[in-house]
Amino acid sequence: MTDQATSIIAGSDSEQADVAAATAAAAEAFAAYRATSPEERAAFLEAVAAEIEADKDAIIPEAVRESSLPEARITGEVGRTTGQLRMFADVVRRGDHLGVRIDPAMPDRAPLPRADIRQRMVPLGPVAVFGASNFPLAFSTAGGDTASALAAGCPVVVKGHPAHPVTGTLVARAITRAVERSGLPAGTFSFVLGGIETGQELVADQRIAAVGFTGSRGGGLALVQAAAAREVPIPVYAEMSSINPVVVLPGALEGDVTALAEAYVASLVLGAGQFCTNPGLLFLPSGEAGDAFLRAAGAAVQRASGAPMLTPGIAEAYASGTASLRGTEGIRVIGEGTPGGDLAPAPVLYEAPAELLSLDDSTVTDEVFGASGVVVRFGDVTELLPRLEGLEGQLTATVHATDADADDAAALLPVLELKAGRILFNGWPTGVEVGHAMVHGGPFPATSDSRSTSVGSLAIERFQRPVAYQDVPAGLLPAAVRDDNPWGLRRRVDGILE
Amino acid sequence: MTDQATSIIAGSDSEQADVAAATAAAAEAFAAYRATSPEERAAFLEAVAAEIEADKDAIIPEAVRESSLPEARITGEVGRTTGQLRMFADVVRRGDHLGVRIDPAMPDRAPLPRADIRQRMVPLGPVAVFGASNFPLAFSTAGGDTASALAAGCPVVVKGHPAHPVTGTLVARAITRAVERSGLPAGTFSFVLGGIETGQELVADQRIAAVGFTGSRGGGLALVQAAAAREVPIPVYAEMSSINPVVVLPGALEGDVTALAEAYVASLVLGAGQFCTNPGLLFLPSGEAGDAFLRAAGAAVQRASGAPMLTPGIAEAYASGTASLRGTEGIRVIGEGTPGGDLAPAPVLYEAPAELLSLDDSTVTDEVFGASGVVVRFGDVTELLPRLEGLEGQLTATVHATDADADDAAALLPVLELKAGRILFNGWPTGVEVGHAMVHGGPFPATSDSRSTSVGSLAIERFQRPVAYQDVPAGLLPAAVRDDNPWGLRRRVDGILE
Repeated sequence: MTDQATSIIAGSDSEQADVAAATAAAAEAFAAYRATSPEERAAFLEAVAAEIEADKDAIIPEAVRESSLPEARITGEVGRTTGQLRMFADVVRRGDHLGVRIDPAMPDRAPLPRADIRQRMVPLGPVAVFGASNFPLAFSTAGGDTASALAAGCPVVVKGHPAHPVTGTLVARAITRAVERSGLPAGTFSFVLGGIETGQELVADQRIAAVGFTGSRGGGLALVQAAAAREVPIPVYAEMSSINPVVVLPGALEGDVTALAEAYVASLVLGAGQFCTNPGLLFLPSGEAGDAFLRAAGAAVQRASGAPMLTPGIAEAYASGTASLRGTEGIRVIGEGTPGGDLAPAPVLYEAPAELLSLDDSTVTDEVFGASGVVVRFGDVTELLPRLEGLEGQLTATVHATDADADDAAALLPVLELKAGRILFNGWPTGVEVGHAMVHGGPFPATSDSRSTSVGSLAIERFQRPVAYQDVPAGLLPAAVRDDNPWGLRRRVDGILE
Repeated sequence: MTDQATSIIAGSDSEQADVAAATAAAAEAFAAYRATSPEERAAFLEAVAAEIEADKDAIIPEAVRESSLPEARITGEVGRTTGQLRMFADVVRRGDHLGVRIDPAMPDRAPLPRADIRQRMVPLGPVAVFGASNFPLAFSTAGGDTASALAAGCPVVVKGHPAHPVTGTLVARAITRAVERSGLPAGTFSFVLGGIETGQELVADQRIAAVGFTGSRGGGLALVQAAAAREVPIPVYAEMSSINPVVVLPGALEGDVTALAEAYVASLVLGAGQFCTNPGLLFLPSGEAGDAFLRAAGAAVQRASGAPMLTPGIAEAYASGTASLRGTEGIRVIGEGTPGGDLAPAPVLYEAPAELLSLDDSTVTDEVFGASGVVVRFGDVTELLPRLEGLEGQLTATVHATDADADDAAALLPVLELKAGRILFNGWPTGVEVGHAMVHGGPFPATSDSRSTSVGSLAIERFQRPVAYQDVPAGLLPAAVRDDNPWGLRRRVDGILE
């Protein structure tokens, strides 16, 4: 049935189980887990954070070994992961995500009386989470999808990424201890290892109610299709593919062009370019100042050396993507660094003619996962706008501008808003802040569902649905919508927030 | 290309156009329409309501003629339609749907400073709306889907229902006048008539960003599939199929059983049973009190006569659905009314053995659109729970209970919450209040997307997505997220609602 599926179900003695056992346990746990109070659920999320911290001396070296990422980066990821869990604990305690609405009865309304109607959000059910290769902690076993689904009241079954099975298993054990310590049902969290077939089996399982995924476009679309083909289709939140366009406006080239170019290359090569928000496409003004930027960027790339990539497969895909750019007529290499070893290919920067963007050929606009960037020149904003309008959906869009560029920037904004989930000025898209206002999402194919984010507190809303209670007797109402408001929630009464 | 497609584009001289012209106009209108201020957009929604009211003496007789529904019902629907538009005007003015979140910059944070990040919701883009046959006004051309999409800032292309083309055209003309009066771009609203091919062409059109639909399961699923097969898939909010289970608990049979049975039958035959919330399945306790209820319900159905159905196709489907019930071994007729004419078949009430619910055969659980009800008996709640758990997703679930049933009712609630979008006590599911707490939605196949509602103010959230603005210069920020808060919006700052 499954290809070497291995699972940990909290509270079970064995680490050998399969997808069906994990989803059955999740389904069984759902009733008790979703009935936890905000305080109980928040305390559990904090316990998960504490158990991960307690094991960090074991987790960090394994994650470094399995991912080839530097220790400082992995240490930072532990902090991001535990911080994320604690942020969701705060969100759960505050309870705004329950979206309580009360339309009180109007028994004397004519011609018909109005019933008492109350609304709250309920969790969707067990959620399948697919960890990402490039964030073995923060977007993986206990990452943002897991944290937000648990916060919403959904049991979680994680399919660990095959690139870091030991890290995943260690984190899963920490979560499992938190489940036990918190007196929650064993199936609140399970961890499964396996290949593509295991993933397909998990998404097809009728007990799974939603899917969170971070990875490739092909992988994400396969899950979207599997979810749509079910007897009961379910939502899939897949974060898939983005080249994160950057627009440099002329005013931004009036300052220190070399510093700007070096900051760009620093973002391009960060983590061997293995970020969903890597700036893969940069629009640069024609003319001398742009030429100077390009020379400085080329030189900076030449000074950079390759860092080890996450897996041989990712290194191969990078080699094939860069070869395809190199082999395309009209594209030229502006700068190339030095390889850092076998699986540490050289960063490379290309220039491509703008015409290539309007062809059916997607060589320039396909994501090359890694430190590969393409620069396209433009004359003025009138010429640039249709190029931007022609791009696919993106996670981010960046503008470098000064006050002198205000009119151009104002013309770009409405276009960028429709293309991307996050618009940033005078910075670089790598480095996604975990907070309440963050959007890490965007129109297809950046994600499969633009109506949400996978980073930040809004992510909890992905895993819930509204239920209305009409004339339900006071003694039977869920606590969230009771008149005495035992959880002290902000409520919307007759449409007005209290 | 299209099968007799006819369209009205606001401001155009001709009423003859096609899907492509309507979607092109919508795409062109999008930028200007979404840039309207809350006040401008709210005033436009109110203008639509006023223009419909101005034409009601022309609209009402046409709607009565085309739908065979009584004048009082259609008059009520005009009020519901205009009231709905005005409710969304209030929602837009309040602006809470913009979901503004601000995480202020922390320039001195260590180890890394935090950028200024602001979030607001933006509209998805042009929305295709498919009107329902059974509500020629409130769920049709200017119905809830249109009102909520326009409120969100999305241009709308309505495919009018072929059962009431004249009503649809008259309403479309009223909306068109409101578009003109409000100085909005012509493509803000368009109306197209045509068949299934026209609908498919509309959903496949790359300019359409989301779909609202109310109708049959087959029709809804076809649109879901068409939307998923696009190069860029889009969300479909299809409200499709529900049998709205009612559970009568023993305590409820200790009062006036005859009055209760008659109220049930009144809900069953209301509007010839042509409501998505029609109570198609009732669970009744075994024993004498239940027998008395059943006798009284049978007698009430026998006294009822059929009312004209909306279309010959709907009357045929009703005949076929009731024939299938009648022809199933074990199902018996409890009461049958008298036909009210050719297209006005008799209401009918059946009793089915509980075992039929657990078979693969879905005869008892398939929706029969019309005044056909099935009663299933049960011994106690232990026996009832798995029956309810086995049902598909529903728009509503109803419980009749007294204080004596509190324990049983408490056991039912967690199951019903996972099955339905609305739970009601001691009432009947027909009659959906338009308000802020209403949920008219539910798990598949009640709808294709349980995370929303098609009635009530929450419906506006279906047509938006979040965008984050990072370090965007103050002068370029959209009004909703500016520091001076010109629209007086409630904002979430660092996670806390102001």
